[in-house]
Amino acid sequence: MNHEDFFKIKDGWNLKIESLKEEQLVHYGSNLLCGNGYLGYRGTLVEWNKNQYQACVITDTYDMADDKWRELSNSPNALATEVRLNEKKLGDYPGEDQMETELNFNYKYGIFKRNSINDEKINIVSERFASYSNLHLIANNYQIKNLSNQKVELKLGINGDVWDLNGSHLENFSGEYDSSENTLYLKAETVESNITLVTALSFKFKKGKIQNLKVENEKKSIYLLMDIEAEAGGIELDRNMIVYSSNDREEPLKAALNDASSALKTGYQTLKNEHQAVWDKKWELMDIRVKGNILDQLAVRFNLYHNIIATPAHSERLPIGARGLSCQAYQGAAFWDQEIFNLPMFLFTETETAKNILKYRYHTLNGARKKAKDLGYEGAFYAWISGKSGAELCPSFFFKDVISGRKIRNHFNDWQIHVSPDISYTIWKYYLATDDIDFVVEYGSEILFEVARFLHSRVYYNQYKDQYEIIRLLGPDEYHENVDNNAFTNYQTQFALKKALYFYYKMENEYPDKLSELKTKINLNDSEITAWQQIAEKIYLPQPNGNNLIEQFDGYFDLEDTTAEVLEDRLIDKEEYWGWPNGVAVFTQVIKQADVIQLFTLHDTFNEEVLAANYDYYEPRTQHGSSLSPSQYAIVAARLGRAEETYDYFKKSAFIDLMSTNKAVSGGTFIGGVHTAAAGGIWQLIVNGFAGMKIDKKGLSFKPTLCQEWEELEFKLNYKEKKFKVSLNQNQFKLKAATSNQTELEFRVFDQKQVLKPGAEYSLKI
Amino acid sequence: MNHEDFFKIKDGWNLKIESLKEEQLVHYGSNLLCGNGYLGYRGTLVEWNKNQYQACVITDTYDMADDKWRELSNSPNALATEVRLNEKKLGDYPGEDQMETELNFNYKYGIFKRNSINDEKINIVSERFASYSNLHLIANNYQIKNLSNQKVELKLGINGDVWDLNGSHLENFSGEYDSSENTLYLKAETVESNITLVTALSFKFKKGKIQNLKVENEKKSIYLLMDIEAEAGGIELDRNMIVYSSNDREEPLKAALNDASSALKTGYQTLKNEHQAVWDKKWELMDIRVKGNILDQLAVRFNLYHNIIATPAHSERLPIGARGLSCQAYQGAAFWDQEIFNLPMFLFTETETAKNILKYRYHTLNGARKKAKDLGYEGAFYAWISGKSGAELCPSFFFKDVISGRKIRNHFNDWQIHVSPDISYTIWKYYLATDDIDFVVEYGSEILFEVARFLHSRVYYNQYKDQYEIIRLLGPDEYHENVDNNAFTNYQTQFALKKALYFYYKMENEYPDKLSELKTKINLNDSEITAWQQIAEKIYLPQPNGNNLIEQFDGYFDLEDTTAEVLEDRLIDKEEYWGWPNGVAVFTQVIKQADVIQLFTLHDTFNEEVLAANYDYYEPRTQHGSSLSPSQYAIVAARLGRAEETYDYFKKSAFIDLMSTNKAVSGGTFIGGVHTAAAGGIWQLIVNGFAGMKIDKKGLSFKPTLCQEWEELEFKLNYKEKKFKVSLNQNQFKLKAATSNQTELEFRVFDQKQVLKPGAEYSLKI
Ligand SMILES: [Ca+2]
Ligand SMILES: [Ca+2]
Repeated sequence: MNHEDFFKIKDGWNLKIESLKEEQLVHYGSNLLCGNGYLGYRGTLVEWNKNQYQACVITDTYDMADDKWRELSNSPNALATEVRLNEKKLGDYPGEDQMETELNFNYKYGIFKRNSINDEKINIVSERFASYSNLHLIANNYQIKNLSNQKVELKLGINGDVWDLNGSHLENFSGEYDSSENTLYLKAETVESNITLVTALSFKFKKGKIQNLKVENEKKSIYLLMDIEAEAGGIELDRNMIVYSSNDREEPLKAALNDASSALKTGYQTLKNEHQAVWDKKWELMDIRVKGNILDQLAVRFNLYHNIIATPAHSERLPIGARGLSCQAYQGAAFWDQEIFNLPMFLFTETETAKNILKYRYHTLNGARKKAKDLGYEGAFYAWISGKSGAELCPSFFFKDVISGRKIRNHFNDWQIHVSPDISYTIWKYYLATDDIDFVVEYGSEILFEVARFLHSRVYYNQYKDQYEIIRLLGPDEYHENVDNNAFTNYQTQFALKKALYFYYKMENEYPDKLSELKTKINLNDSEITAWQQIAEKIYLPQPNGNNLIEQFDGYFDLEDTTAEVLEDRLIDKEEYWGWPNGVAVFTQVIKQADVIQLFTLHDTFNEEVLAANYDYYEPRTQHGSSLSPSQYAIVAARLGRAEETYDYFKKSAFIDLMSTNKAVSGGTFIGGVHTAAAGGIWQLIVNGFAGMKIDKKGLSFKPTLCQEWEELEFKLNYKEKKFKVSLNQNQFKLKAATSNQTELEFRVFDQKQVLKPGAEYSLKI
Repeated sequence: MNHEDFFKIKDGWNLKIESLKEEQLVHYGSNLLCGNGYLGYRGTLVEWNKNQYQACVITDTYDMADDKWRELSNSPNALATEVRLNEKKLGDYPGEDQMETELNFNYKYGIFKRNSINDEKINIVSERFASYSNLHLIANNYQIKNLSNQKVELKLGINGDVWDLNGSHLENFSGEYDSSENTLYLKAETVESNITLVTALSFKFKKGKIQNLKVENEKKSIYLLMDIEAEAGGIELDRNMIVYSSNDREEPLKAALNDASSALKTGYQTLKNEHQAVWDKKWELMDIRVKGNILDQLAVRFNLYHNIIATPAHSERLPIGARGLSCQAYQGAAFWDQEIFNLPMFLFTETETAKNILKYRYHTLNGARKKAKDLGYEGAFYAWISGKSGAELCPSFFFKDVISGRKIRNHFNDWQIHVSPDISYTIWKYYLATDDIDFVVEYGSEILFEVARFLHSRVYYNQYKDQYEIIRLLGPDEYHENVDNNAFTNYQTQFALKKALYFYYKMENEYPDKLSELKTKINLNDSEITAWQQIAEKIYLPQPNGNNLIEQFDGYFDLEDTTAEVLEDRLIDKEEYWGWPNGVAVFTQVIKQADVIQLFTLHDTFNEEVLAANYDYYEPRTQHGSSLSPSQYAIVAARLGRAEETYDYFKKSAFIDLMSTNKAVSGGTFIGGVHTAAAGGIWQLIVNGFAGMKIDKKGLSFKPTLCQEWEELEFKLNYKEKKFKVSLNQNQFKLKAATSNQTELEFRVFDQKQVLKPGAEYSLKI
């Protein structure tokens, strides 16, 4: 695959699509997304509408319109535009070849640019960004050039007839135009959750005079129809789209109109400067520089950008959607991806954001408690698909047997339990990276204890074998449901129990009042603590066998040993689901994604022989049918010194969205959008892979190894309130401490202890 | 449905099919089966061949011809006959309407009679039986009448080209004709198991003279081609088919030829007399007399007959096939049907046979041990489909998704565990009915301990709930696989553990040497005994809820509540399997067969309110898709005094085969044959249902109730070496003790204790 089939590289921050291709509409929408963690405006042209997947997804607007799927709502589109010149439409409409369009996207500041031109050289140039200085704002500069002072009919306004995956979420529309302020708004309510959503528009013509203006108030839209007289052969317009929901503010309309007016006063260029300043600060810590391959550099930043804008860093009560805010797919909800894939990058850069992500799990404890209770367990069983409240959003039936048309009962919601210990695991990592014991005492401990309690109620004791077991599971590899003792889950369970015990005893000694308060609150008994200890001691942990292999689950090695290619041939229908209950992979060793290998990226308890044996065994049996898979194989490859294989996985993972290797629709279901976990995985692949960075009880450590393709790699780390720059080339590894650091750093490189004073630089020939 | 569509009643023992219908061929084959527990010769005409499912199934000839299914072999047919008159075929061949045939069957002695006649009044009359005085013998008298002294071409011989369900089992044929003895034989070997099977034929013309005789030795057959001159307008032939396998005798050929010659010397009528004498003795104890409905009387005897001939009473090393010896379907192998459905009738009549059935389980302990070990358990996990060795014959994939054509992984072999405790249960019942402690000490105890050991390794302890649970099960209702804590299985498990403990302590005190010998043999530790006690004490036993309902398994009541009729409409294909993993019943409360209700027929621990509530709840949700179901509902209906409902179930159950209400082929698989469990269920329905007989620690008891349809019911019981006659009419229940009884009987009627001296009669107005 050649990237030039998809885009041209301008530099390490910018890509260009020289000529817009209609068949790529869906992918432009998400790849060229303007977002800021509050909203995501898809990379569509202003002439387009819901048929081209135009959408602006808004956080915290969960609503269910079809009695089955609860998802985020899309805002009405305040950038809706229709231009007529001599009574003929002007623009780039799908299926109508009036103009040729070039698209540019800048990943440093999330700026979307379009430039369309027709045979008469009439030119539409437009630029927009989703502001990071006001998260409710999308600012747009819009120009028509090369007009010969013609009169142009312009239809601007707010279109509420938006794209939705699962039913229309908005109703009860009302709108108004305020001519004194040059603002208009459209207010609507979500059909089930009754959230008020206000979309406002303010605009100002910098070139061009309004001659006639008519307000068109339709059922789901408000438009202004204007005749504009061009000035100096052109028209130029600044406009601001503002979105507020009643979940943001008590008076969303007032806030929206206020922001709309104020943005107009501030002006486009100033808004852009303020916005860029926020990004500059982010990149100061989060950028990763790659020398030697400009395409790779761009791809790295594409992934970092998307992981950042997917994350509602402004809130501690919102999840990171599996597709971010790039569309409604996967319900704008969090999976285990959030902690295991999205979060690590923030943990070593923007730690406040990492904390917010974990606080979200604290605020959704009641949802997890309810799920546990509903299924007959205790404590906190976190939702497989977690929205605002933490209630389980994953329906029992969602895949379809495409041959019979009958729905399939998949057990993602009730058997895939590892998300709960994965959260405990991440609290531990947060603590290691930040020393933030206050967070653990106030928030983390309650999660840890309730997860331990859940695990206690979920394991079974096998009296004959004198061991605890976890029966009827679904591990990370989703093709094998209903398995026992999934190695990944069992190890994570032990880890979660041990960390619960660690903090229990730490609090007992250091924060006794806080502990007794919490014990009273959640009614925690001493006998439970004893049970956690017993289980942690005697839970069955599959060990490497004679060939150094860890069995993914009981009986895995007895399954048919074949490959994904062979299974392809067994498909009756290409759209068939491969997994449970009767898909082609179920009775074979073919797995969807890293599972035992995923265990190695989280735990450092196995030696290199074991890593190598399992990598070599599981790799050819892995379909990589999940975007979560390649980055994890990549990290283990790097640990084995196989940097070229790590690089191959980088290619696989970094371009999933950029080269649109993924399907956007499967079995009639829209699954497009940005793979935010793969985006977060790129950071890990580089930092934990090439730089070989790890964190554990002994602190920070590195085992660097770089692929031949890259000359140099450079990134920053924020660790326990100290800042560092890591650089790595073919011959040298360097770690430089910021002069502002208050204390020295003890760390390890290739297992050798080192100390780095503030402002000092450590370097090692490799 | 009217029985006259299928047969006419001659009397309480005999039915007649006035005019053979081709479309009923499959059902005649099994309903009109001549059998004796060693072989089963299907009710086909001698002119027919494998296309009409002609077969003679032989016990103990397991062989696998298709790499997948191990089943009993069919013997070559020594009654193969072709008659030509004036160079034209004479007989009743399917598709050729030369003759009109009447069939008669006598269920007292298992005598099959055919009478065919053509337009010229030429008449073939033939009679045969599978001898009970020599189990290897099928004797046949064959006559052609109303010939005008024509010459008849007769082709007699042994045809080895037989019907087989799953591949041809026989090869290496050789045959010989001995003209001095008038015997011929065909010897063959089974393809996989290398069993030698010898089929011999001896014959003698009582009317008609052989004029020419030619031996035709083909690849799979040996025939004699003869010209016969009729005598007094007829031909009459006695012939004997003899079958021996190398599993019966070291020299099967010698035995077969010897028996063939000897049978010829004895002569047909004497053979028949000897055979009938055995049956007369059997019926003395096993007959059930029903007055008031001759059809029902016949149907009762049909079922008793088939349960008797299905049972290899002559051996302690052979199972009762689920379809007896009526065909190869279900592999001639035992299911839980054997103990729970077939055996109870023998337990109170021919106790030696009941003992042999249980000894079969003793002799197959190693197969059960191997199954346990293979699946990671300990002790004895009895096969779901058990043949000679007790190895699991149930393949992992046998149903097919008829829509996709893909095979289904059903878990009958690894999740349906109740057969093991069902065997323990039956050992206990055998002990109660016979006082045969020697059997328990020598055989039963080893089964009981190994089953307890298996259960110990199969249960899990839920530490949070302080109870043992059984996870991932398939109970009697086969539509719901992968369930937890199936009430039936959990109660049976506790029972099996308690009885293992009971006999352990009994042996420890009364047979200490035997116990220590056995403990050494099976390496049984005291800590295991402690564990059995713990599990028996703390195993989770679902209790009646507020509505007196016992939940079939965890979560059953949360499933969609609908009916089988509604589900019929959801079928995409009428042949679809309803159960696991994605059939129409899986996510509903619709069950295939009695499950909680089955529990009530085995255990008397619930009061009438509970019985009634569960009966009323589960009955409308039961599809009765298994022939095992109606008899069990019938028994509970009787206990509730709902004798008319018991009678309705009698009708459903007794005529399953007689009126061919079952399919013979499903999803391309032959599933025809006699439902022997339903046959055994009829005895239970009458004795445990109408007579309300039960046996427990307190002894024998009765709660009689009779349906209006019947005037009187009479049967015998053999209990602890004492004999009794039970009779019941609308007004009176009577129990008469045989004068030969050595001691008096203490029993209960409607919970009132009674005592009956030898020769005395107890009677109660009801
Ligand atoms: Ca175009
Ligand atoms: Ca005919």
